[in-house]
Parts: sequence; C-alpha cells; structure tokens
Amino acid sequence: MFVMKCRVCRGRACLEIRRHNAAFCTEHFLHHCRQQVDRAVHSQGMFTHDDRVLLAVSGGKDSLMLWDVLLKLGYQVDGLYIGLGIGDYSRESVGRCRSFSSERGACLVEVDMVSQYGYDIPTAASVARRATCSTCGLSKRYVMNDVAMKGDYVVLATGHNLDDEAAVLFGNLMHWNMEALARQKPVLDAKSGFVKKVKPLIRLGERETAAYAVLERIDYIVEECPMVADNTGLRYKDVLNVLESKSPGTKHQLYLGYLDRGASYFDDADSAARDVHPCGFCGSPTTAEICAFCRLQRLATDEQPKLDVVCGQAAGDGDDG
Amino acid sequence: MFVMKCRVCRGRACLEIRRHNAAFCTEHFLHHCRQQVDRAVHSQGMFTHDDRVLLAVSGGKDSLMLWDVLLKLGYQVDGLYIGLGIGDYSRESVGRCRSFSSERGACLVEVDMVSQYGYDIPTAASVARRATCSTCGLSKRYVMNDVAMKGDYVVLATGHNLDDEAAVLFGNLMHWNMEALARQKPVLDAKSGFVKKVKPLIRLGERETAAYAVLERIDYIVEECPMVADNTGLRYKDVLNVLESKSPGTKHQLYLGYLDRGASYFDDADSAARDVHPCGFCGSPTTAEICAFCRLQRLATDEQPKLDVVCGQAAGDGDDG
Repeated sequence: MFVMKCRVCRGRACLEIRRHNAAFCTEHFLHHCRQQVDRAVHSQGMFTHDDRVLLAVSGGKDSLMLWDVLLKLGYQVDGLYIGLGIGDYSRESVGRCRSFSSERGACLVEVDMVSQYGYDIPTAASVARRATCSTCGLSKRYVMNDVAMKGDYVVLATGHNLDDEAAVLFGNLMHWNMEALARQKPVLDAKSGFVKKVKPLIRLGERETAAYAVLERIDYIVEECPMVADNTGLRYKDVLNVLESKSPGTKHQLYLGYLDRGASYFDDADSAARDVHPCGFCGSPTTAEICAFCRLQRLATDEQPKLDVVCGQAAGDGDDG
Repeated sequence: MFVMKCRVCRGRACLEIRRHNAAFCTEHFLHHCRQQVDRAVHSQGMFTHDDRVLLAVSGGKDSLMLWDVLLKLGYQVDGLYIGLGIGDYSRESVGRCRSFSSERGACLVEVDMVSQYGYDIPTAASVARRATCSTCGLSKRYVMNDVAMKGDYVVLATGHNLDDEAAVLFGNLMHWNMEALARQKPVLDAKSGFVKKVKPLIRLGERETAAYAVLERIDYIVEECPMVADNTGLRYKDVLNVLESKSPGTKHQLYLGYLDRGASYFDDADSAARDVHPCGFCGSPTTAEICAFCRLQRLATDEQPKLDVVCGQAAGDGDDG
C-alpha cells in the first residue's frame, strides 16, 4: 500500500497539498499553515508584532483558525464579532467566538447590530429591498472600520482565504469591474477615515484552513450562513474547483499571479477613492452626500425619519475604500 | 404549444440567441449574422470595401461562413488555404475550400507546407519535440503573414469567433500572460514586416456560425483536426459553456468587456513588439537572432543544416506580432 510521506520529516503524512506537490504530517502541516500566514504578513507588509490588530471573526473555520495562527505567531490580535441578528446562526456563531477567546485569554469585542445600530440584517435587506449578502457586507464593512478606528487599532484583518479571493477576482474579471479590480489587494493602506485592511490567509485554500481548524481542535460553526443562497460567487468557486482538480495550482496562479503581474496595471482605475468627502450624517468618508451605510440604517430603523434616497446605488457601494 | 417568434418579422423563429434575448427566422438570422460581422468590421476599423482582404480558411464552419458573409457584404476577399499535411483531414478540408471558392467564383490561394516549406506539421512537431498545436500555430502565422505581405493584401482576416476569443482570454487571465493580453485585440495594426490582422467574427458565437453555415448550405468539414487532443483551451471552453448556460452573455461580457474596459490598461505590456530586428535567415521581424519559424523549419527539414538552437523558447514565440 502506498503511504504518503511528510515532506519535512518523512513520517506518515495526514494531508496532501497537490498545488505544492507536497504532503505533511500533522505537526508539519500546522507549521506549514503558520508559515504561509507569516509569509503573507511579512511579504505584503501587513503588520508587525508591535501593531494592535483587530481581526473580524464570524465563528467559522477561516477567521478562528487565523486568530489561532496569529496568536501562536505572537501577534497582538483582538477579535471583533458582529451580531447580525440571523437567528440560530448568530446565536451559535457568537458562542464559538466566546469559547475560543476565553480558552485563550484573548480579547473579543462584540457589537450587536440591533442594540447598537437599530437593525438586523434580514429586516434591513427586506426593508431596503437589497440582496441580503450585499446588505450584510455593507453593514459589516462599516462596523469593522468604525470599531477599528475608534479602538485605535493599526490594522483590520479579515479571514478571506485563497478560494475566496480567487473567486472574487474571477467574478471581477468576468464583469471587468475595474474599480473592484483596482481595490482587490491583500493590503489596502489607511487613508482619511479608513483603517488599513489586510487579508493574511491569501496563501491558504479553504481545505487547508478547515484541516488546520480540525487538527487544532478549534470548535467552529460548520454551517454556512442560512441567508446565502446559490449565488454567482459560489458558481465561480465551483468552476475554479473543477479547474483546480485538473490543474492543481489554478487558484494560486490566478490570484497570486494577479498580484504579481496584473494588479499594478489597474492602479488608476480606483476613481472612487480619489473623490470622497464626509457623510452628512456620520462623517465617514463617502463618494455620495450620505454614505451607503447611513442610507441603509435610516431605511431600516424607525427611530429616525426615512430619507428620500435610493439604496444600493453604485456610488454608495464604493464607500468601503 | 409555445412558438418562438422572430424579433424582426414575428414569423416563426428557427433559432434563439439567449444572450441577445432574441429569436430569429432563417432570413433574419442570416441578416443578423451579417450585421454583426459588419458591425465588428466598421466599429473596429478593420477594413473598407476598397481594401484587398486575405482570409485564412481551413474548410471549417467559421472561416467559410465568414468568407460567405464578407462576399455578400461586398468586400474583396481572397481565401488562403494552408495544406498542413495532416492526412485525410487535410485532403477533405482543402476540397471544401475549393468547392466553396469555385461555386462563388472567388479566388483561393493555396500553399502546401511540404512542397513550399519542406515539412508537414506532424513531422515537424515530432522532430522539434514541440506540441502539435503550437507547431501548427507558429507555421500558420508565419505563412499567413508571408502570403499577405507578398500578395500586397491590406489586411489578413481569420475566423476566430467569440467562443474562441473568450476562451483564449480566459486562459491568458488564468496565467496572467501579460504579453498575450496586450496582443489579444481584434485588430493588430500593420507594422514593419507584419500585415494588419483582424478578427471579424468576434461578435458571433460558434453556435451561430454553425447555424449560419447550415442554413446557407455551406459544405464545411465538421470533424475537428485529429491532432487536437484534450487541451486546456477546450477545458476553458467547457467552463465558459457552463457559465454561459446559467448566465447567457457571459462570454460576450468577458471578451467585449475586456475590449471596452480592460485591454487599454495592458498596452504597455507588449514588450516583445518594441525590440524586433530582421531574422538572420528570412528577414522577417523577430525578437531572436533567427525567427522561431526558421528554427522550426531547419529542424524539420533535411535540406539545410540543423542549427544548434532550442525551439519553443519564449522569445521566438513572440514573433507573430
């Protein structure tokens, strides 16, 4: 019987990574994951051991394994959990984040959308007649930035992995969404009103983040968010999975090749970033009079008069910098 | 029973084109195809009715239907058939081209690789240890340009359709092949030693070119070239077909969106085009000392001494301008 051997110690391997043409035992697989994260952090200049990092955590495998990796690498990382008000899913996911942080003595910042911003995601999406994932993304980006700025964090990290980024890039290319292409980088530097944003998991696929979480016995929420229906993002992931299975390294090549060779050509395409001013309500930088978040919030809450504006317009969607 | 109606005359439709959200009867479908070709020719400034056009024809649906369309639109188009020496496939395909041209009183230029250049494609690929499709592409590009230049044609046209171009673009993006991205345009202007090259079929998918050929009773060779095995180009076509079936317009959006919004960003990436000089043998412009075609020809023929060069190097592959 053929037994895969660990690339490092030649012991029995537990996992093969075809795009690296390598297999690893448990110990060296975990080490490999940490190494890949540290390599992304260093090579892209994401942050140093002196920086206070805020990591957005959902209770899923990616964000919790990243928190674990960063803590083990000695970085100063607080978690940020945003309660979106999505029934059992939210109740279970916050529980995983609390257990994780208390077991490690790490700081978890919790923000509840309903009590702090007056709405939950399903209601807001319905009232604003906006797609749920879009409503959620807009809300999370605003809150993450807000908490990071007010908490004097140097950088905001998210758990987007290689599969996520490759699929988003794929979609941006299929639609030649130039603004999004210009912004699709693992590091977006701080600028007036926006905290620096980084994605330290870009060198790990989701099969690897899941394996890491299982091997490190991290109790994460396995279920996908129940609001995510069949969307084009998942379709692009499926297509990339088909190509990856035939040519291991396809996603790596697409996304990291973009960063190496393609991305710099699109620097000029981020026009929205050049023309921002303070939102009339909250003061956050926006390309519109009132930022997309405030428009959504006013629509979704009864406490303040509704504005006569249309949500979901392109201009407001560029606010996330 | 639901009967599709022609968008133009409301008569019974024979074909639906989902990406245009339209259906057509035979007459108006044929008119639609000619209109799409004429639109590409005009909007991209490919050629005028005063220009002598050389169209590369293989005997397949795309090149023969394009010849038919261009003749019906009143353009001056001669065909160029290149005999590649691929057994029955070559014998059958030249027959279709001869029948087509004689029925229409059009001029067909024939070039036989073996008698005029001393080698056939299968032998050359084997001797040069180069992939067959790559050997064939290199040979055809050289011969097409050579015949067009010597015959004083203003422009060389090829029958690449929307499916072809979308799949090639897809592959160039997956690999971030910057040189190829910079050159992937439906019009490459003439420059020292290179004739102007155009692709008038970029607005028609291969389902449409096939339907046109059938409806116009064009006798084309249905078989694919027997040398084409499963290659990544076909894999990309499969993937795009999956996406197209779920979202009609995917290929159009990818390729024509690239031309509209993406392509101009890559103008600087065509470095090979800037540094060419005459080939030491044939005088054609090349980035190497001896052009890739001459290197291949010397390897593939016994008539001249073999050169001590390696075929298939990247530098030589940029010769097609």
